[in-house]
Amino acid sequence: MYSSIKTPTLLLDQSRCIRNIERMVARAQRAGVTLRPHFKTHQSRVIGHWFRQAGVQQIATSSLGMARYFADDGWQDITVAFPVNLREIELIRSLAAKCRLHLLTLDEDVISQLDRQLDSPAGLYLKIDVGTHRTGIDPNDLETIDRCIEAIVRSTHLTWRGFLAHAGHTYDARSPAAVREIYAETTAPLIALKERYAAALPGVQISYGDTPSCSVMDRFDGIDEIRPGNFVFYDLMQEQIGVCTHDDIVVAVACPVVALHPQRNEVIVYGGGIHFGKDALLDDQGQRSYGMAVWPHQSSWRIAGQEVRLKALSQEHGVVSMPGGIPQEVSPGSLLFFLPVHSCMTAQCLGRYTIIPDGTTADHFAAAL
Amino acid sequence: MYSSIKTPTLLLDQSRCIRNIERMVARAQRAGVTLRPHFKTHQSRVIGHWFRQAGVQQIATSSLGMARYFADDGWQDITVAFPVNLREIELIRSLAAKCRLHLLTLDEDVISQLDRQLDSPAGLYLKIDVGTHRTGIDPNDLETIDRCIEAIVRSTHLTWRGFLAHAGHTYDARSPAAVREIYAETTAPLIALKERYAAALPGVQISYGDTPSCSVMDRFDGIDEIRPGNFVFYDLMQEQIGVCTHDDIVVAVACPVVALHPQRNEVIVYGGGIHFGKDALLDDQGQRSYGMAVWPHQSSWRIAGQEVRLKALSQEHGVVSMPGGIPQEVSPGSLLFFLPVHSCMTAQCLGRYTIIPDGTTADHFAAAL
Repeated sequence: MYSSIKTPTLLLDQSRCIRNIERMVARAQRAGVTLRPHFKTHQSRVIGHWFRQAGVQQIATSSLGMARYFADDGWQDITVAFPVNLREIELIRSLAAKCRLHLLTLDEDVISQLDRQLDSPAGLYLKIDVGTHRTGIDPNDLETIDRCIEAIVRSTHLTWRGFLAHAGHTYDARSPAAVREIYAETTAPLIALKERYAAALPGVQISYGDTPSCSVMDRFDGIDEIRPGNFVFYDLMQEQIGVCTHDDIVVAVACPVVALHPQRNEVIVYGGGIHFGKDALLDDQGQRSYGMAVWPHQSSWRIAGQEVRLKALSQEHGVVSMPGGIPQEVSPGSLLFFLPVHSCMTAQCLGRYTIIPDGTTADHFAAAL
Repeated sequence: MYSSIKTPTLLLDQSRCIRNIERMVARAQRAGVTLRPHFKTHQSRVIGHWFRQAGVQQIATSSLGMARYFADDGWQDITVAFPVNLREIELIRSLAAKCRLHLLTLDEDVISQLDRQLDSPAGLYLKIDVGTHRTGIDPNDLETIDRCIEAIVRSTHLTWRGFLAHAGHTYDARSPAAVREIYAETTAPLIALKERYAAALPGVQISYGDTPSCSVMDRFDGIDEIRPGNFVFYDLMQEQIGVCTHDDIVVAVACPVVALHPQRNEVIVYGGGIHFGKDALLDDQGQRSYGMAVWPHQSSWRIAGQEVRLKALSQEHGVVSMPGGIPQEVSPGSLLFFLPVHSCMTAQCLGRYTIIPDGTTADHFAAAL
């Protein structure tokens, strides 16, 4: 089936993907937390159906447009895990009318503007900054939290859901132990907040994100819901953090070879920044990698070690380092496969999937815009 | 007209763009070289028409698919400035039948395979590596060059066009003087090659690329054709190299503000890696920048200094550093505009343009796939 590939193509191994989904579903069930997978990684209705078959009914998206994309495919309970964008109020109104929509903010003014402009109910989380310092209310800033909760409670259309956090700094960890440490540090203030408000406002929840934590923790005491996204595919970044193996990685980019440079043991492939994105890893030797080669094997691929890597990307070119020499079977017109550094970005760039082994294609929201 | 913007939107200032086009056309005319603009930066038929109105008839693209996109819009003379991808031989055959198509390679086997499978004439360049070490034949490897030329001359359908080079390492320069030095170093071996073959094969040409060189050189002695691409928009990277001013930059991304962090003088915008790409610059203080803020002004924008910058990007979030404090008029729901670090990648990510001042939209090949 690889013979029909002409340009850089995102391959998706269906059995690996379903295995990752089922594992996370089982992990959440064992721990007694709700799994609300973040669909920003795959952004595909076809892959959404695999989640539905595994019993998932609640999802998260990273934009209102993506929420509409999935609501139009029958999803009825959606959290847009991104601060409310007031410029899309019309879309918020229509989504709130058609599904159980949950939003998040950290701003009292946004709460009152939302309430004034809604005419259907919506859930609202307060975003808490647990140390990533991207966005969220400082968990010690009780004055702001109190004011926001009061504004939600006063509102006509909004229901307070609780606190939502994303410990994005687990991406800097380099071992499961380090991830567990960040998990403990970042969930403690959330649990304290929940205890503070639980008596007066029963039902307050904690929604907690990030694939590294959700991949290594077996218990989520005090947490109500987990929102991992990347685990559906994993990637080299997660492997470097230590929360998946190379064999858990679900997507690979097939790239045509267009030139050989045997003098420097390098090959040029058709596959660049517009296909992979520009996220890179540094390995133990400080060498940059934009992707690791895997080899076609029995309608999927096999891992052959980290030696062959994409060392540089320009717009459409990839430079492949093959320190052991260029194998005989690699020539202009042949294909090389690469696991991506950051699967969310690579899927966004390529905008569709070729599912193996059956060769059908799956959609991506990016191509539906 | 900005009031209708709801999500991250790529604005294109038409007068700045036409000014950049006309300047490069005039520069090429004064120097007596052919301008074959590289359309990989804008990838837009609408912007292509502006080039046509300025008298341009020959273009370059970075893929065969992009060549078809422009051939279908009436372009008749197209160089695909990327090594031949043999897996797309059917598309090569159909393009060669409908326009004057020029390809490039560095491989004798590719030449013979191409010739066997073509049934219309096509031009062929040899790609020379002038020091970037991405791809191309070493200019001192006369044996390979001789063999390739012999194979082209022997062929039935291929016509040898000459040598093509891209001095991509001008992107590491930090002054026009440094760019001029690289230009001199990289063109000398090309001119020597041309002289070597000109007697036996008259008409041999040199096609030379890269925006930095083409923006600062006034004479291109010995060069036949220039292939700059980025100059149509320029960006912060070109400004840092010193070959354009901030005022020459044609595109800006309008991003909705979604959260304020006054304690740390930061603002969160809806606008992340999937909108800007992930190329970054380091400023003189070693601070990372993914974009520089400009301010709405008279249906375009004005430059206000480099202080306000995008300091971090995740998938959909941008973190804006405002060291002077957050201005009163910035609140959730307002817009901030940013000049991009690398306009080619940002245009690819956003996939369409909103032209100012008239508010019409222009196409991008990425959205046509």
